[in-house]
Amino acid sequence: MEKDKTMSKSKTALSPTREENFSEWFHSIIREAELADHSSVKGCMVIRPWGFAIWERIQAILDRTIKETGHENAYFPLFVPLHFFDKEADHISGFAKECAVVTHRRLEPSADGKFIPGSPLAEPLIVRPTSETMIGEMFSKWIHSHRDLPLLINQWANVVRWEMRTRPFLRTSEFLWQEGHTAHATAEEAKSETRKMLDVYEHFIRSSLAIHPIKGMKTESEKFPGAQQTYCIEALMQDNKALQMGTSHFFGDTFARSFNIQFSDETGERHYVQTTSWGVSTRLIGGCILSHGDDNGLVLSPDLAPKQIVIMPVHRYREHPEVLDYCQKLENSLKTVIFHQERLRVLLDLKEETGGEKKWKWIKKGVPILVEIGLKEVETKSIGWIERVGLIQKKGVSFETFLQEAPTLLQEMQDTILASSEHRTRTNIQVISSKAEFYDFFAQKNPGLALCYCSDHLADQLKEELQVTPRCIPLEEDHPGRCLFSGKDLPSRTLIGKAY
Amino acid sequence: MEKDKTMSKSKTALSPTREENFSEWFHSIIREAELADHSSVKGCMVIRPWGFAIWERIQAILDRTIKETGHENAYFPLFVPLHFFDKEADHISGFAKECAVVTHRRLEPSADGKFIPGSPLAEPLIVRPTSETMIGEMFSKWIHSHRDLPLLINQWANVVRWEMRTRPFLRTSEFLWQEGHTAHATAEEAKSETRKMLDVYEHFIRSSLAIHPIKGMKTESEKFPGAQQTYCIEALMQDNKALQMGTSHFFGDTFARSFNIQFSDETGERHYVQTTSWGVSTRLIGGCILSHGDDNGLVLSPDLAPKQIVIMPVHRYREHPEVLDYCQKLENSLKTVIFHQERLRVLLDLKEETGGEKKWKWIKKGVPILVEIGLKEVETKSIGWIERVGLIQKKGVSFETFLQEAPTLLQEMQDTILASSEHRTRTNIQVISSKAEFYDFFAQKNPGLALCYCSDHLADQLKEELQVTPRCIPLEEDHPGRCLFSGKDLPSRTLIGKAY
Repeated sequence: MEKDKTMSKSKTALSPTREENFSEWFHSIIREAELADHSSVKGCMVIRPWGFAIWERIQAILDRTIKETGHENAYFPLFVPLHFFDKEADHISGFAKECAVVTHRRLEPSADGKFIPGSPLAEPLIVRPTSETMIGEMFSKWIHSHRDLPLLINQWANVVRWEMRTRPFLRTSEFLWQEGHTAHATAEEAKSETRKMLDVYEHFIRSSLAIHPIKGMKTESEKFPGAQQTYCIEALMQDNKALQMGTSHFFGDTFARSFNIQFSDETGERHYVQTTSWGVSTRLIGGCILSHGDDNGLVLSPDLAPKQIVIMPVHRYREHPEVLDYCQKLENSLKTVIFHQERLRVLLDLKEETGGEKKWKWIKKGVPILVEIGLKEVETKSIGWIERVGLIQKKGVSFETFLQEAPTLLQEMQDTILASSEHRTRTNIQVISSKAEFYDFFAQKNPGLALCYCSDHLADQLKEELQVTPRCIPLEEDHPGRCLFSGKDLPSRTLIGKAY
Repeated sequence: MEKDKTMSKSKTALSPTREENFSEWFHSIIREAELADHSSVKGCMVIRPWGFAIWERIQAILDRTIKETGHENAYFPLFVPLHFFDKEADHISGFAKECAVVTHRRLEPSADGKFIPGSPLAEPLIVRPTSETMIGEMFSKWIHSHRDLPLLINQWANVVRWEMRTRPFLRTSEFLWQEGHTAHATAEEAKSETRKMLDVYEHFIRSSLAIHPIKGMKTESEKFPGAQQTYCIEALMQDNKALQMGTSHFFGDTFARSFNIQFSDETGERHYVQTTSWGVSTRLIGGCILSHGDDNGLVLSPDLAPKQIVIMPVHRYREHPEVLDYCQKLENSLKTVIFHQERLRVLLDLKEETGGEKKWKWIKKGVPILVEIGLKEVETKSIGWIERVGLIQKKGVSFETFLQEAPTLLQEMQDTILASSEHRTRTNIQVISSKAEFYDFFAQKNPGLALCYCSDHLADQLKEELQVTPRCIPLEEDHPGRCLFSGKDLPSRTLIGKAY
């Protein structure tokens, strides 16, 4: 076996680099890895095949867990009647500024032959920004007795929140997500569901996305409109900003009262149900880019990668059919190998491109292992490959050894990027003990997160002064102390920082 | 083994029966099998878990084939700018009457505190009724050279067509579907794609849904707005009406010209691409109900059934733990059995219900095999079950024999309902040779389909007089003849009848 080496090259595949301009680097990854494209509709992106294949991986893994925890998928209407929103004041206030409103149900030719909206609707319809109201209405029809509880429903759907400043995958006017909605007989059971699904997200984000999750509770100022408690997963990105990656809400009987969702217990007595909802979205893909991407493009965790190994022939296989044979033999052998309880996802890329084009295409797309097969490999029955994490080139390993070790190589990459995310998080959260320290901390470039006692009523002020927000109260925080600013007694510290 | 018998009962599970009122029977299946529910939004249904699980089966099977035939999934915006539609006159004329129009992007509190639409959009947005225009716009950005072709894209999405008369699964204002969109260098290749995907649908409808498909081409009057050719799969339902179950369109360069989608060939010359689109929707579930359902509820083909075998204990398993043990042993054994290249989908139902409730629940939901385990079965190591097709009761078969024969039993049911659909189709298509015969045929109750020479320009008149439409020109029809009405020479016969 030859010595491993890091690929040498005169410049990076992406320009600008993260260091030069982090925000432009983010957009260039999305363009160069062909994850998404702008559309002609403001704030709406087109998810291209490679980006959508990543979303399909997220769906496949999470959907299995959602079903294993007893939930069933269903589908609810895209349109919500305006008066449904009006039933829950906090909820409508929270979403009113972002609602796409359908007011007409046909187009008619105008005098100049152009089509214009015709037939106004009696009541405007809102394109769902979230489905608590529609699902609350249905729950009130479906739930009668304690035997109908718990009712555990999930929906994979598109939702629309008309955002003013949008960024692909992080904040788009339309996005794809899953939204779970459940109803329970008791508050304890509903709270336990809220926490259970938070744990599902935490496990998924750690073990599949290889991102270190911070589990916490939102402060009053950051709660979901209508929720009694909002739990969340936050994660720290490479520019030291936080990204909210998933939320889980306990509503108590708020929506049950608004939509009259009641059940009879064993004695016939009527009670309101206790509801929850929880969701993650295509934003998770944004998190993977911001957490793992480097100056040569996307880096995908092997568990998430739509293709974990891409094989490319480096000699013309029409002139050297033994190269193609060897590639196909490797492809077929690898496809029987098990990694994370699934068969390896392998692609033999025979597209007509130059070797350089093809190699850099897959590096930019973040495929964990890129195998290059030339005449030398065929003659010596060996394998040479590039590992995406660290761009390490390896050569001269025997066919059988590579087959045996592929799962270990993938697991090592998965572990490496998770460790890097975890290290970044641990080293960039700073305990802050005074007001002066707080301002010094946030005067730095890319400061990270401050862990400190801070009254939530200061949230607006801090946002205006420093563009920072309370991200969450980490779940392990349970030690009381005094607010740095007001001296007020507080039950626990809050993580504060810049966020996406 | 005891003698098989058909379950005897005083009345059917559904009322009215098909004979008494076919239309109400259809709605009662949807209600009793818990497939869908009405929502508060006119024409929009809620797809309940059992209905959605059937859709997930359709998605899983078709998605695999769509990918195996080289297509990649992507996702395009829900909203289409009005001026996109205006680029293709036939297309906008075809959909204008059914468009949901978004005109505002927020809600604002009015003087009386109620929320009303605020912030009008500069240009109205159409909620996609189909995505040719949006995807055409993107194709024009993505296609430059012959090396970018063919471009083979598919999308699973919701679409909205504001229908006046709606029926769950058959015609809803919002529905779920897949829409494939492809671009090719030549018309021959695009036409071949159109036919290939029609064949994919034909195979799926026959082998998975167990419905006999009629493959044909739409006449001019029934073509998709903007298409040069529309192919379709039609199928005959139990009330002898036709249901269009899938379509595949060849557009030539119509959309390529409207959206300027051009490529350079090997010599650098520029050409417009040739495009296609093809789709099936949640209407397929309506087809399964109308084709296979009986007076006791839904009948699912084993390939489609979300659960193929449900096991229920008929003695209280808390008092007789050996019953539960036996059920679990059967469940675990069955889950290793292969049917149609997948493991059997088996459910052990331990919900607290009476035996009768539980049994009829699964019969109404159409599960192919319902196994009832009591003390007798445990003692004699035997299995007793009900087969949904024909409601046949079997008893006294040994555990091992049942395990071995389960795939054969399922295949027999699959074959039986397909044969029934095929027989119905063959016996209810009548060749019609004169105008008088034509009117006599359609004077009957539930006449079926007429196969005859009929000029397409009579379509409007026949629709008005007899409520019949040209369904398609079956693909095997290639013998010229004269129109029954006008005497005009026609290249082939048309299938005409009532349709959903």
